[in-house]
Amino acid sequence: MTPPAVPEAVDRAMLLAIETSGAAQGASTPNPPVGAVILDADGALAGVGHTQPVGGPHAEVMALRQAGQSARGGTAVVTLEPCNHTGRTGPCAQALLDAGIAAVYYAVPDPNPQAAGGAAALSSAGVTTVGGVREAEVRRGPLGPWLFRQREGRPMVTAKIAATLDGRVAAPDRTSQWITGPQAREHAHAQRARLDAIVIGTGTALADDPALTARRPDGSLYEHQPTRVVLGTRGLPPQARLRDGTAPLVQVRSHDPHQVLEALPDAQWVLVEGGPGIIGAFLAAGLVDQVQAYLAPTILGDGHPAVLDRSVTTLAQAHRLHRESVTELGDDLLITLTAAR
Amino acid sequence: MTPPAVPEAVDRAMLLAIETSGAAQGASTPNPPVGAVILDADGALAGVGHTQPVGGPHAEVMALRQAGQSARGGTAVVTLEPCNHTGRTGPCAQALLDAGIAAVYYAVPDPNPQAAGGAAALSSAGVTTVGGVREAEVRRGPLGPWLFRQREGRPMVTAKIAATLDGRVAAPDRTSQWITGPQAREHAHAQRARLDAIVIGTGTALADDPALTARRPDGSLYEHQPTRVVLGTRGLPPQARLRDGTAPLVQVRSHDPHQVLEALPDAQWVLVEGGPGIIGAFLAAGLVDQVQAYLAPTILGDGHPAVLDRSVTTLAQAHRLHRESVTELGDDLLITLTAAR
Repeated sequence: MTPPAVPEAVDRAMLLAIETSGAAQGASTPNPPVGAVILDADGALAGVGHTQPVGGPHAEVMALRQAGQSARGGTAVVTLEPCNHTGRTGPCAQALLDAGIAAVYYAVPDPNPQAAGGAAALSSAGVTTVGGVREAEVRRGPLGPWLFRQREGRPMVTAKIAATLDGRVAAPDRTSQWITGPQAREHAHAQRARLDAIVIGTGTALADDPALTARRPDGSLYEHQPTRVVLGTRGLPPQARLRDGTAPLVQVRSHDPHQVLEALPDAQWVLVEGGPGIIGAFLAAGLVDQVQAYLAPTILGDGHPAVLDRSVTTLAQAHRLHRESVTELGDDLLITLTAAR
Repeated sequence: MTPPAVPEAVDRAMLLAIETSGAAQGASTPNPPVGAVILDADGALAGVGHTQPVGGPHAEVMALRQAGQSARGGTAVVTLEPCNHTGRTGPCAQALLDAGIAAVYYAVPDPNPQAAGGAAALSSAGVTTVGGVREAEVRRGPLGPWLFRQREGRPMVTAKIAATLDGRVAAPDRTSQWITGPQAREHAHAQRARLDAIVIGTGTALADDPALTARRPDGSLYEHQPTRVVLGTRGLPPQARLRDGTAPLVQVRSHDPHQVLEALPDAQWVLVEGGPGIIGAFLAAGLVDQVQAYLAPTILGDGHPAVLDRSVTTLAQAHRLHRESVTELGDDLLITLTAAR
């Protein structure tokens, strides 16, 4: 479908709405991380907002509050079709009408039948209503995992690898700090602050005693912290960092990746960090939707492989992916790929 | 050093000379693969040439022949300082003077004391002589390995990996065809036609029976074929493809990478293709100057690693490299890195 032709101010506002929505990602779960921008009647920026944590206002209401009287006769630009449903908060479509908004541009229609109908309601009330604005970008952006969950009934799963160019994540003596550099680690931590959960195996938990918290380069914690999930039958010692209360801890006492996803009924985006066998198990179960490979410009020559699946015997069993992007992060490369479906 | 300011026609001619010199790479060994362009007195293109195989004319003479009378009062643009030395052929500096060339632009001064002095001879004869034109590009281009050999007294060694994203070059059952796609293979074959030698171990030779020839996509052979070198103490069966006579075969009955280089006294550029242990041995010996990693968008999860060096125990032993370039070859990525020295 060809995207609709929209005024340049609306197009720019949608890019800002996408960026803004990133601040809601993770924190807004189970609600969609939406971004909204209000332009006044002259097309000038009047308000910006994103979905607040559960029970708080939706993005449109946040942006309308900031815009105040400037919203009258203005334009709302939203990443998701405004909801028409009274849940914990009133319907956003009504809030936009009440504020006197004259035009609404959105990217993605709401796939949730309970919440959908906002565009029709706005349109019937005489508001110019246009969908499909920068829809592809929005689907690839912070709203992507929520849309995935609506469609697939489970969270989007990203497998993360931080390896040498020859695919090693640790030396034979288990030394692994630091294979990748500071920019790659900063990128990974900023992403943690947008995740619902991080999954590791008991092997990694016991060997490395990781915190799995989302930290800024100065060591301070991001506001949103992902749930820590440990997969495996062994217990964790009482003094494990994962028990420090910074973020919820979920122990899944099995080796079945499906049980991890069942234990996270609201999660939109889950990162599988390792070890190699856990990533292998998610791949073998067909539960990896995206791979992020941080590759350092080093060759090790021996040690622990990034992925391990002892059931693999022949090349035909390789998991084929599509390259999505290649990003330079200092000396390292981040290669992002999506599962070929 | 700031590159000299040169007329735009000269700058363009140097880029053409670099490109042309690629056709000499491999075939010109032990002579440098040089490219030369002659512009007539009006600055129009009059002749292009590259170094011919041993005993044949140098690049300048080839370009002068093509230019004929148009060379009089014209300009010569050459990747390497014209030689001043009578070896198998007469000195190129004299040939340029005889042709009535008025100006000579070159990139790199000749590091070989026997051949140097061409620029001084031309200058004394009243020819405008300028060095350093696009010197950095020429050093990174086809002349690079020859310059490396002049400086280091051994060939430049590139280690090639063609692996999955998780660093596997074959599945547990040894299946490995094809991990990378047709564009990556085409690129690798075009490069073989510019190499002096390809090195594999007896393990790979016996298991895969490779031809190691440089072939076009239609299967036809490139004119220049690299010497095939097999490292290891085991013998090759009489019917091995490596014995088919298409290119020379050198057997180095040892496990010492230094002996490979000693067996190739003229080679400028040598590619180490594997297996994993051979690449590991060259790395451990400090004999890898460049790494080319062709990475497929697949994850295998088990099988043979791209590099193996059983002497590695801890991360501090990792070989650090500098990323030089990242190239998309169809679905695959080619990451080129140079050794950190």
